[in-house]
Amino acid sequence: MTDIESLKGFYDRYPEEFAAWRGVIDVVETTAAEFGFREIDTPAVERRELYEIKSGEELMDQTYSFEDRGGRQVTLTPEQTPTRARLVQQRKDLKTPIKWYDTSKRWRYENVQKGRDREFFQTDVDVFGIESVEADAEVIAVAATIYDRLGVADRVEFLINDRTLLDALLEAEGIDNTDEVMGVVDDKEKLAREEFLTELRNTGVTHEAAERIDELTAIRGPITEEIDRLRELAPDDEDAVEAVDRMADLADALESYGVADVCKLDLSIVRGLAYYTGLVFEAFDSEGELRALFGGGRYDDLVGLFGSQDVPAVGFAFGYSTTRELLKKEGEWPAEELSTDVYVAAVSGDVREEALGFASDLREAGLVVETDLASRGLGGQFEYADSINAETVLIVGQRDLDDGVVTVRDMDSGDERRVPVEDVVDELA
Amino acid sequence: MTDIESLKGFYDRYPEEFAAWRGVIDVVETTAAEFGFREIDTPAVERRELYEIKSGEELMDQTYSFEDRGGRQVTLTPEQTPTRARLVQQRKDLKTPIKWYDTSKRWRYENVQKGRDREFFQTDVDVFGIESVEADAEVIAVAATIYDRLGVADRVEFLINDRTLLDALLEAEGIDNTDEVMGVVDDKEKLAREEFLTELRNTGVTHEAAERIDELTAIRGPITEEIDRLRELAPDDEDAVEAVDRMADLADALESYGVADVCKLDLSIVRGLAYYTGLVFEAFDSEGELRALFGGGRYDDLVGLFGSQDVPAVGFAFGYSTTRELLKKEGEWPAEELSTDVYVAAVSGDVREEALGFASDLREAGLVVETDLASRGLGGQFEYADSINAETVLIVGQRDLDDGVVTVRDMDSGDERRVPVEDVVDELA
Repeated sequence: MTDIESLKGFYDRYPEEFAAWRGVIDVVETTAAEFGFREIDTPAVERRELYEIKSGEELMDQTYSFEDRGGRQVTLTPEQTPTRARLVQQRKDLKTPIKWYDTSKRWRYENVQKGRDREFFQTDVDVFGIESVEADAEVIAVAATIYDRLGVADRVEFLINDRTLLDALLEAEGIDNTDEVMGVVDDKEKLAREEFLTELRNTGVTHEAAERIDELTAIRGPITEEIDRLRELAPDDEDAVEAVDRMADLADALESYGVADVCKLDLSIVRGLAYYTGLVFEAFDSEGELRALFGGGRYDDLVGLFGSQDVPAVGFAFGYSTTRELLKKEGEWPAEELSTDVYVAAVSGDVREEALGFASDLREAGLVVETDLASRGLGGQFEYADSINAETVLIVGQRDLDDGVVTVRDMDSGDERRVPVEDVVDELA
Repeated sequence: MTDIESLKGFYDRYPEEFAAWRGVIDVVETTAAEFGFREIDTPAVERRELYEIKSGEELMDQTYSFEDRGGRQVTLTPEQTPTRARLVQQRKDLKTPIKWYDTSKRWRYENVQKGRDREFFQTDVDVFGIESVEADAEVIAVAATIYDRLGVADRVEFLINDRTLLDALLEAEGIDNTDEVMGVVDDKEKLAREEFLTELRNTGVTHEAAERIDELTAIRGPITEEIDRLRELAPDDEDAVEAVDRMADLADALESYGVADVCKLDLSIVRGLAYYTGLVFEAFDSEGELRALFGGGRYDDLVGLFGSQDVPAVGFAFGYSTTRELLKKEGEWPAEELSTDVYVAAVSGDVREEALGFASDLREAGLVVETDLASRGLGGQFEYADSINAETVLIVGQRDLDDGVVTVRDMDSGDERRVPVEDVVDELA
């Protein structure tokens, strides 16, 4: 007799709760699949050094790392990107675009708090091997379609930037230390205007340039409209014009995908410095109540660190935690309840065999069917049928069978009707 | 530039291979779901002590165990049963029968060999809270239905025994040390007849009793037929007769479930000693070429070790390794290839927007659709469409569009037809 608890930050999901999770995961996966992303399956444990290639010591300190029985340093996967890079490097024969999705668990030893668990689901969606605005747009289209299908399209917007655009604009201002300046831009949201300008000046930017950077990074509006404003503000510099043109192409592609209306250009979106090389985006709650839902972007330099091929890449890791909060707030989180098509009730023990027969036939037709396993009376069977939310109860009794019928009860309305034995499957399937 | 390999016994499944895996996992999960088993989700990491309750030191030595950053001794789940027992104990309000399924990974640090990996999928299917032959039969029916749907019903049979039956038969022979004797029975298959008898004698069994045990444990045939033979052979003892009656009831229930024809009674099936309390079964390749596919049974004493409730249980853990071998041998392992409903090809760049529009509409209709992301010419697009096994290519060209049509090419036959723009989704969905 002992009561051992689960680990902090690890969750048990009983059927009612997981039915809702499964519903949401299904939407995410089905959407990715319909866009032609293909499911892969990768190890939950990798050599620690795989993660060290990309991650700094701070992130490694948040991993579950240990020595296995063979003396290898191994790590529970905290993110799938390094594994994906390994898979891409292993195979030189993959046709591009390589479009992969996968939902699996990740593990990070973090301080557990709301929305931050130690074990969590993540769906990774990436296009490898193609550097194009269409690939960028498709990745955003998958994300936008997911929220549309989850019923919260009007609560989610995508803030979009391109690191090469910001880079070109800064360079056109005569700035060489663009990384340092982008670091300040990354902090802009936390700073008052004067602070922001001062921080920029501290990196060596002139007063005039700082003002223009402030203006540029204040752009935040519907992408198709803001492109024009960007053209006006952008300096007359070849690289800058090219970068603006590329953003205009992305806006066109987003329109073609039918998702431009939920996309906003926001030149202040940087998303850290070490990783992204082009497009960056973040999905936000448009009412601003929740923190970022998730983000993604283009990372053309990363896969090359894992092998001999340079492979461009764009994608995102869909986290469920904040999305779940949003769906609950909007009443779009699926009902946490069981659903059952048919419960087959036996009026008495001597018709149990017939009851099991009906249950088998209905299952063959693809229905979710339960029947009595505990020799319960009819009352107990109905109580159980209620507890599993059976839509219909098929009541099998000897007298009915003698007439060649069974009784079908609609559990919502309480209506009952008698159905010829041979029509049962057709009627209920 | 580095090439870090995956860990030995851990597999990367690229889309083609995983499509086949997913097909098989889907059959297993859908079958369990249609029988009213409900999906749960549980942690991949638990406190080490959870596994120590059930497992001996030998099994613990095969786990991935380590100290987490908080100083806790933790273990990657090598099997889900202890977790399930924990979940059942945590909730006193669960309606019985509690019917759960889940497919997830397990980890064991074993010597890697054919069919034995360090990371592997397993689907657990259990009924908790009900002790009945119907529950026993339902669990076997799920397993048998899985193999039926996988297309290998004629290659799989279930060898069935009941530990209480064997126990009662041995006790009726005046044997007290039934556990010791069952240990010998468990080894029977590896022993010559004389060796078996000698081993039995060595446990203190009389010559006559040993002969009868040999005869009883030689029973191996269709369960409905062998019940009669069992009745003849069984000693005239109250407990033995009761146990035989229970086996006859199980045979009846298996018949009601329509799976009796693949079930064989085999009194030599013991499946270890520490765990099972009633029904034990093993799924075998009926042509005897492969080792056991998987096994299961009733374990009424286990859940009680994990908390204050005594909860009967019956179920199995479906492993995929040997089943995969069998399906491959029988040509029933799904094709390891991609499948795509439609590839939308743009004849030239100026119709790309229209092509993306068709792709979006077709995806909304639930189809798997890809389109060009790399500004390829028509030839390159067709080559890619081929590589993803597109069933249909929708060719979008300006001249066709001017006529209000697009061209639909069936990739198998090569036939092309022109379809009015407004009919495209209806025609292809």
